[in-house]
Amino acid sequence: MNNFEFQAPTKLIFGADTISKVKDEIPKDKKILMTYGGGSIRKNGVYKQVMEALSEHTVLEFGGIEPNPKFETLMQAVEIVKKENIDFLLSVGGGSTLDGTKFIAAAAKYEGDPWEILLNGGAKIKDAIPLGDIITLPATGSEMNNGAVISKLETKEKLAFHSNFIYPKFSIIDPKTTFSLPEKQTVNGIVDTFVHTMEQYATYDVNTPLQDEWMLGLIKTLMTEAKKVLHNPNDYEARANVFWCATCGLNYWMSLGCVQDWSTHMIGHELTALYGIDHGESLAVVLTRVWKNRKNDKMNKLAKMAVEVFGANDFLPKNILADITIKKTKKFFESLGRRTKLSDYGIDKIEAAKLISERFKERNCTLGEKSNITPDEVYKILMDC
Amino acid sequence: MNNFEFQAPTKLIFGADTISKVKDEIPKDKKILMTYGGGSIRKNGVYKQVMEALSEHTVLEFGGIEPNPKFETLMQAVEIVKKENIDFLLSVGGGSTLDGTKFIAAAAKYEGDPWEILLNGGAKIKDAIPLGDIITLPATGSEMNNGAVISKLETKEKLAFHSNFIYPKFSIIDPKTTFSLPEKQTVNGIVDTFVHTMEQYATYDVNTPLQDEWMLGLIKTLMTEAKKVLHNPNDYEARANVFWCATCGLNYWMSLGCVQDWSTHMIGHELTALYGIDHGESLAVVLTRVWKNRKNDKMNKLAKMAVEVFGANDFLPKNILADITIKKTKKFFESLGRRTKLSDYGIDKIEAAKLISERFKERNCTLGEKSNITPDEVYKILMDC
Repeated sequence: MNNFEFQAPTKLIFGADTISKVKDEIPKDKKILMTYGGGSIRKNGVYKQVMEALSEHTVLEFGGIEPNPKFETLMQAVEIVKKENIDFLLSVGGGSTLDGTKFIAAAAKYEGDPWEILLNGGAKIKDAIPLGDIITLPATGSEMNNGAVISKLETKEKLAFHSNFIYPKFSIIDPKTTFSLPEKQTVNGIVDTFVHTMEQYATYDVNTPLQDEWMLGLIKTLMTEAKKVLHNPNDYEARANVFWCATCGLNYWMSLGCVQDWSTHMIGHELTALYGIDHGESLAVVLTRVWKNRKNDKMNKLAKMAVEVFGANDFLPKNILADITIKKTKKFFESLGRRTKLSDYGIDKIEAAKLISERFKERNCTLGEKSNITPDEVYKILMDC
Repeated sequence: MNNFEFQAPTKLIFGADTISKVKDEIPKDKKILMTYGGGSIRKNGVYKQVMEALSEHTVLEFGGIEPNPKFETLMQAVEIVKKENIDFLLSVGGGSTLDGTKFIAAAAKYEGDPWEILLNGGAKIKDAIPLGDIITLPATGSEMNNGAVISKLETKEKLAFHSNFIYPKFSIIDPKTTFSLPEKQTVNGIVDTFVHTMEQYATYDVNTPLQDEWMLGLIKTLMTEAKKVLHNPNDYEARANVFWCATCGLNYWMSLGCVQDWSTHMIGHELTALYGIDHGESLAVVLTRVWKNRKNDKMNKLAKMAVEVFGANDFLPKNILADITIKKTKKFFESLGRRTKLSDYGIDKIEAAKLISERFKERNCTLGEKSNITPDEVYKILMDC
């Protein structure tokens, strides 16, 4: 196990009918900017619940944060924060709204061009407006972590940043809010959770048996509960279990002391930035192709997964076991109705391979847990998609 | 899954050669009281490492905190804290030293008789001296939780309390410090970790598949790594894995939203308070007898464990599967050299059953996740030990 440090201050409030608790989590003297997305919170009753709970607070609103939240949109909110002396941000919605709100929180206190926050990965953040959230989409895990991913329309870029200043003060999860999710978003969230876990698991082995048990246990649970949710979207227990998987998929608990990959996300972000496909779609396309490309590096973990998750016989050669995991994972995504080829999304793989490998070349960037996925390997991976 | 709330502020620093980091975790202007136990930290080099790291800090010392830390001893430290205006406590040693330090922290700020803290379970704590720790024994999980267990010599009582004011500010774990542990303490820690996990797992089922995966995954890891540690006490990787199991065994992560039992601990505490047997010994005696007594209530979970952990065939009737878990668990404790009968420790079970069931009767106390272990059932459980 590698050495590690961990600290996470977020207060988590989880369960049915918990949204009204927001009123006790934000001091009455705070001037709140409530952020949200395209307006689904008005349809599913969440907006009404929040407004009723905060009837004694001062609440301004900023709606319209889009999926893959855009720098250009968020900077409008930063203006409001400064002009109105906002001192608390409340994100109500999915991970995009929350990631956007994390950026607003940091940008409002940042000296210099806020896009630098993304260019230096958050390293130069010295302060942020305190924020909390009511999270309504099980996917990003943003509700218990210190990261966010932001896109820039102008340059078609999608970049991540991290800072302990942007940990939510609290996160409220009421799984009932997910009953009304469109199936496409439910599936994207399941794929996102699966891939988050795999970015932390499917690497080289540094002797972390407990962490491996937890990550593979999450995958087993997710696969079982995903089926239940798709079969009956109003199954509270299954919705709660899927949400808990999503939160734990990226609250860092499972992989402390492990090696991490994240190349699928890095390549997937480029596909979303350039072609606008959903985050979950891009991950379903890329993950197994990265695994094929790096099979030797990831052999032990992929083989272990074949036995533990997919019930393969552990007498089989590791090479075969790894192939089983690659095939079964692709099959799982397809069983959710998520297509796994670039051409399924109308993307020309030759163009994508060229454009994206060039982008990584320009940034002088290699990917993966061994930093051995060069731009040339990215080209090969995308040509296989 | 049940609704839950969770927040834990402790910063964890884990890994080889991390003790020197203590110097950056305590502000220089703090006056520190360093607490420790019987002096093993002088033999294993930890004392020297801490003192070197804190050479620019003001450090007073309070040694001699015993296993099952005694109220009478700890109150001497409370006097020193008050007289010397101590404003930071640093626990260096095992879970007993840390639990004792948590009590000192709360008692020094408590108005009224500090024993009340135990009588009301910590509910009336309004403040505490900040504390941190270097934890050298994988067992109690106290390094990431808000609980402590304190004994009173005078009345032969052993009681627990909880308060968010006593969460350590930081905990430093260097698994190397455990190389020199006597085998008896290593085994007690393994049993403690096993039983902590089971107090959270082996209850009635409220549909928590991820939590179950994590708890059973911990048990599987612990059983494998325990063997390695006993075979080679200087196996760093195995020591690190066992320590991580112990910490996660009671940092609350695994069982959020679950139902919990804790009757084995409650009965075990009485055995320790009355007869002085080790905590780990008392748990190894009591756990499987509680399970036999409450087999119907715990049937689903015990049966699931037989399949997942002990490789039993899931076509067997649940009743048989539950028996397999009970027998295999007892066998595991015995494989560690831990005896599982009261008579093995020179305790007369008839006397113990009478004394302890009367104590619970006096306190008007029923135990277990269904509060259905009455004093009469405690009598039966102990007569079976």
